[in-house]
Amino acid sequence: MTASDAERLARVALGRLTEPGRATLLGAVADRGAVAVLDHLRADPLVAPQVADVDPERELEDAARSGLRFVVPGDDEWPDPLEDLVGAAPVQGRGGIPLGLWVRGPFRLDGLSGSLAVVGSRSATTYGDDVARGLASQVAESGRPVVSGAAFGIDQAAHLGAIAVDRPTIAVLACGADRVYPQAHQQLIDHIARTGAVVSETVPGGAPMRVRFLARNRLIAALSEGTVVVEAALRSGALNTANWAGRLNRHLMGVPGPVGSAASAGVHQLIRTGAATLVTSGEEVLEMLGAAGEHVLDVPRGKDRPRDGLTERQRLVLDAVPLARGATSASISRVIGLGVDATHAALLELEVRGMVEVDEDGWRLAALAHD
Amino acid sequence: MTASDAERLARVALGRLTEPGRATLLGAVADRGAVAVLDHLRADPLVAPQVADVDPERELEDAARSGLRFVVPGDDEWPDPLEDLVGAAPVQGRGGIPLGLWVRGPFRLDGLSGSLAVVGSRSATTYGDDVARGLASQVAESGRPVVSGAAFGIDQAAHLGAIAVDRPTIAVLACGADRVYPQAHQQLIDHIARTGAVVSETVPGGAPMRVRFLARNRLIAALSEGTVVVEAALRSGALNTANWAGRLNRHLMGVPGPVGSAASAGVHQLIRTGAATLVTSGEEVLEMLGAAGEHVLDVPRGKDRPRDGLTERQRLVLDAVPLARGATSASISRVIGLGVDATHAALLELEVRGMVEVDEDGWRLAALAHD
Repeated sequence: MTASDAERLARVALGRLTEPGRATLLGAVADRGAVAVLDHLRADPLVAPQVADVDPERELEDAARSGLRFVVPGDDEWPDPLEDLVGAAPVQGRGGIPLGLWVRGPFRLDGLSGSLAVVGSRSATTYGDDVARGLASQVAESGRPVVSGAAFGIDQAAHLGAIAVDRPTIAVLACGADRVYPQAHQQLIDHIARTGAVVSETVPGGAPMRVRFLARNRLIAALSEGTVVVEAALRSGALNTANWAGRLNRHLMGVPGPVGSAASAGVHQLIRTGAATLVTSGEEVLEMLGAAGEHVLDVPRGKDRPRDGLTERQRLVLDAVPLARGATSASISRVIGLGVDATHAALLELEVRGMVEVDEDGWRLAALAHD
Repeated sequence: MTASDAERLARVALGRLTEPGRATLLGAVADRGAVAVLDHLRADPLVAPQVADVDPERELEDAARSGLRFVVPGDDEWPDPLEDLVGAAPVQGRGGIPLGLWVRGPFRLDGLSGSLAVVGSRSATTYGDDVARGLASQVAESGRPVVSGAAFGIDQAAHLGAIAVDRPTIAVLACGADRVYPQAHQQLIDHIARTGAVVSETVPGGAPMRVRFLARNRLIAALSEGTVVVEAALRSGALNTANWAGRLNRHLMGVPGPVGSAASAGVHQLIRTGAATLVTSGEEVLEMLGAAGEHVLDVPRGKDRPRDGLTERQRLVLDAVPLARGATSASISRVIGLGVDATHAALLELEVRGMVEVDEDGWRLAALAHD
């Protein structure tokens, strides 16, 4: 199924006439359809000349020559999770379901359900880079696409983590999907366009601007089932994405770091205030994303200890053996209220296991049995 | 006010006859008083000889010679928060209000309200040690006593943090308060006994045993208004203290660390499951402990940025200036829907502030304005 040609062309035209993510315009389009909104603009003598200047059919042809397709609501490929944007209050005037998404790459956007956004600081530490990359690899290997913004730092690490395990990754850009920002990521973004998808709400050729980053961040959050923030300083842009994830009822997760690291301060605040759940591994991320029964983690346990193999009675006795000075079987027996013979037998069993030692001062714990 | 002599002596005797923290015995004492429970034991022919062997008056005299006092419920010095133990279910049979506390040192236990327990791994990393020490210093300087267990690692760092700012710290031991464990902490524990307090529920001369550590942990949690866990592996004993803090409705806090650090895995689990609140500094700990209005933190903010001094209009314009390629005033004006003259004026103001640059390609953001 596809949207009507008229609706698609009207969306192309509106995209050329307005900035990405203008909540009021997008609200009107969601209510009345793009054709009606465009007709309304055409009827306004102040705007009509601009509307007349736009040639959406040529826009689409040009885009196709650049390897871009324009996916709109109603298309089979349209990612349904974006519909949640209709209910979310705008931030700085940005919000709403995009008119459409310009896409470059073989990955179909209707395959984004279950995806994970990995976002964070552009000035990440090597710690943050390592964690983001490892986490993205694990999640990508489980079959969930990894979404990020192709920026320096955590974004780059996230994409590279997915690429390292030969899984598609999706870069959502603030500039046009035919452009590259930052320039240093030309190779990375081209690789993503060959193997995954480069996606943007901004018209082809559009430049990266601050407002477009704000609009873009809502898409990263909305396209994904969950968002993990790996390193974000207190006023990092990644917190804007995190905010959208929370407001869209997506899973919001944060990776902690050393408390002295400014790069983790924003994440710590998200966790501390309860906005984000602390995660330390790809497994924990998958557990949060997973449907009931799927990826459910065992509660992590320490290494099995020698204690684990003991009988109740042996443990009872072991717990009463002093750490430092020795004690007689009789005194241990008194402490636990067990007969002297039974206590002595258990001590001998524990000695065989190397867990207690005995000398002229009496019984004491062997080094092995300490925590 | 002090407890009756008979009650105090009965508590000394019961302490000699039973292990610390036996929930059933302590429950009976809380209900009926120590004198009645001791009379009951005396009436049991199997136990009567042991009861007859105990000489509580001599115990108290001997203890006084070792510099120990025995503080019991009803004494002015008795720390009331321990009463909360009466409502908490036992763990492995341990629980209940202690018969009394043996104390060595000038610090009065009724001064413990508002205190903070700092606990954690014995095999701490230097990161954990540094954080524990810094946190303990800050909290101690605010006038809140720091409580810990005098063990290696985090416990030691916590005590040293308080000592470094010349504030009293309280060591709660599993062995008798006249003894030292671990032996390597002889100097530390003696220093605490001169300046703060060394406290134990175990009778004088009693050896450190595993069950006594479990009983001791409940006291660390119960004596303190909050507990911070700084580094704990997945099966660290510190998690036992944390568990008690949670069950006693004390503030439970955890310090995060690098996700690859096994020493932080137990803390991460506490935070992740919502049992503990993430804290990164002494200020945040004080904020949690503080009464309303006291120690209330400002939400941490990043460094002030040049943006903060701008007018609404200047920000509106700034947000539409491209990061990379230049844009004309006219195109920026279109993007934001502001008149060309007003846009141009704002651009010039921003240029004066060094936030935008202009050349033959048009306006672009100056490096300064990037996040």
